[in-house]
Amino acid sequence: MTNYDSFLSRASGHLRQSAIRQMGMVLAGAKDIVSFAPGYPAEDLFPWQAFRDIAEGLLAGSDGSVLQYGPTPGYRPLREDTVAIMQTRGIDAHSDRTLITTGSQQGLDLLARVLVDPGDVFLMELPSYTGAITAFRAAGADLVGVRQDADGINLDDLDATTLRLRREGRTVKVLYLVPNFQNPSGLLIGLEKRLALLEWASRRDVLLIEDDPYRDLFFTDVTREDETRPLAADDRDGRVIYLSSFSKTLAPGFRVGWVSGPQAILSKLELAKQADDLCSGVLDQRVVHEACRSGLLAAHVPGLRAHYQRKRDVMSQALQRALGGRISWTPPRGGFFLWAALGDGVTGDQLLPAARARGVIYVSGSAFFVDGSGQEYIRLSFSAPAPERIEEGVRRLALAMDDVRSPAPAGAVRDRPSRA
Amino acid sequence: MTNYDSFLSRASGHLRQSAIRQMGMVLAGAKDIVSFAPGYPAEDLFPWQAFRDIAEGLLAGSDGSVLQYGPTPGYRPLREDTVAIMQTRGIDAHSDRTLITTGSQQGLDLLARVLVDPGDVFLMELPSYTGAITAFRAAGADLVGVRQDADGINLDDLDATTLRLRREGRTVKVLYLVPNFQNPSGLLIGLEKRLALLEWASRRDVLLIEDDPYRDLFFTDVTREDETRPLAADDRDGRVIYLSSFSKTLAPGFRVGWVSGPQAILSKLELAKQADDLCSGVLDQRVVHEACRSGLLAAHVPGLRAHYQRKRDVMSQALQRALGGRISWTPPRGGFFLWAALGDGVTGDQLLPAARARGVIYVSGSAFFVDGSGQEYIRLSFSAPAPERIEEGVRRLALAMDDVRSPAPAGAVRDRPSRA
Repeated sequence: MTNYDSFLSRASGHLRQSAIRQMGMVLAGAKDIVSFAPGYPAEDLFPWQAFRDIAEGLLAGSDGSVLQYGPTPGYRPLREDTVAIMQTRGIDAHSDRTLITTGSQQGLDLLARVLVDPGDVFLMELPSYTGAITAFRAAGADLVGVRQDADGINLDDLDATTLRLRREGRTVKVLYLVPNFQNPSGLLIGLEKRLALLEWASRRDVLLIEDDPYRDLFFTDVTREDETRPLAADDRDGRVIYLSSFSKTLAPGFRVGWVSGPQAILSKLELAKQADDLCSGVLDQRVVHEACRSGLLAAHVPGLRAHYQRKRDVMSQALQRALGGRISWTPPRGGFFLWAALGDGVTGDQLLPAARARGVIYVSGSAFFVDGSGQEYIRLSFSAPAPERIEEGVRRLALAMDDVRSPAPAGAVRDRPSRA
Repeated sequence: MTNYDSFLSRASGHLRQSAIRQMGMVLAGAKDIVSFAPGYPAEDLFPWQAFRDIAEGLLAGSDGSVLQYGPTPGYRPLREDTVAIMQTRGIDAHSDRTLITTGSQQGLDLLARVLVDPGDVFLMELPSYTGAITAFRAAGADLVGVRQDADGINLDDLDATTLRLRREGRTVKVLYLVPNFQNPSGLLIGLEKRLALLEWASRRDVLLIEDDPYRDLFFTDVTREDETRPLAADDRDGRVIYLSSFSKTLAPGFRVGWVSGPQAILSKLELAKQADDLCSGVLDQRVVHEACRSGLLAAHVPGLRAHYQRKRDVMSQALQRALGGRISWTPPRGGFFLWAALGDGVTGDQLLPAARARGVIYVSGSAFFVDGSGQEYIRLSFSAPAPERIEEGVRRLALAMDDVRSPAPAGAVRDRPSRA
């Protein structure tokens, strides 16, 4: 028989199973699990009727290009839509420097291809988004973590880390950031810190990848829209590559995201996309364009903010009741995630088998730390479950916490091997 | 300002603009051009009404997963559909070893990632499909050409090339083949040669990538279905990685293809896809599944065969009338392409500016040859244009041939710079 090891590339050895995707599979195979694991948007909020009407119109057959191969950079009117969206966010964008991607994930992956030589350093916050970690690692980047404060990445640690690496002869190319309601921490980088980061990037000659899928989902009780101003809006030096997506505001099943930035990078991204998938789903792009053009998206977003804000409240209040004083968290100001520190020396990985046995799942914090730390954290996504399911899930989580902290009888649960 | 060169990866230097995609852009910007360039399926044959009904049902909102993130390997029932299709083709497939991809192009690209270390040799027929060339080159593969006979790749040249490369210390990992109605040559590899290729691959320890998008589109006047039997059907040694697609039989805008093969490779491909785009379009997969499940696809395919066979006749007859004796070709036995040798020392690149000036485009043969040869060929795609447009395009092509072959007056046309 064939020995496949000799055929596999060195790069294939960098590929790792994502903890979040793994949890998605647990969920798919299980009954009555409350899932706080993947950051799924709420399906009951998808504008089904509007999508149905749009699809019906597009599939009338009068415009054959709706189901034909499309241009690699994307459907031109949709690229213009993304430019209009970026302009409302303060960014001086242009459709010629904008590429539609098969979800933001493809944007991250294409960036890894055109920027990473194996061993190049990408700086990542501790914690940081797993999808970016996966894409950058797959290309052979060496990911180095930088500490986070309450208002985002710590600038002193950032600069000290960069200088130390450069003294060691390392190539530090990129800092990756999710400035708005970061996945997983939920943090917002402060406005002054954003400007300081731009200044720092120019001074140290580093590119910034700004990943901004949650920007529209700020919670109006504690966040002003102007606090979400992207770094790209104040980029005078062509330092920022900006990514965003329709996955959190319309629906992820369309797989429509975009990337925008300096021409020199974007032209390479387009070539890389040609090799990758020729073009993104054409019907998907057309549906998303109609949702933009008709005003559906703009009309839809305020309701999403209110919805996720309410779920944040439900989860915060349930946690306060069931686990107040035992775990700690900062209430998120937007986005999908509540980031909790377990305390008492309990780790996310320890708790997980007990939580699964009780019928609730989440993602262990360690998945988000490129330095292997973060054991004491868990990421709880409140976006998808209905309010009463959030309450039920928190109740189960509290029982699981009891299981791992009480001695003998719960030992049976604690020792039960994880099926993950 | 920022100097981007220092940020770009070495791999980004391997990226090249595809000649076919470039022609797609020419077309998008031009009026009254007859395009024989991209291999687009005929849009008027897409089953619009059926797709509309399917989409309407799926978007009713009763199943939220239709627009949610999906599992990385693909929608399970669709994976089962692809298994059923492969079984009708004689392949002993299993859904656990099958991955849904964002078009076949993604399958090629993922394979490049998990198999190519820069400098590894992939063997390619002369000519071969540009999408594969692009994907493999982007990963840093060194593509080496092997001569083609009327029944496909020349086995003597294949073996001699492999042994020579190995004597030189090179790693020869993969032979890439499109055995059915090859893009661009239209050739069918003979059944005995297919078995010989399997034996050769085992003997020489090489993997075969079998790319089979056109299999269903055999022309019944000159091709029996059993002549399309994939190599994968007789693979006893786990040598074959098999790719196919719904792009030519349903519609390319859905971006739904698949790859199937040995578990050791497929598990790596799944991880690479996670990094690449998380999952393929979910609504797209669901529509394609419904088209399979309902019997639509099976009922649809015979009409496609007849349609494209008729267009092949129209193009062959028009060429015979307008250019018989001046150019030569073998009438295709299936697929989308007619591969013509220009003769008289005229090259495809020479003819192209004149052809564009006359209002017809095609792809020059050199795009398909990894060794830079093939100047004398052009690929004419007869799949998309209506019959009368095929005739008009051929008439224009004949005028362009006159332009490049006649002296003084046509010189003005010949010297007109290409906008490509």
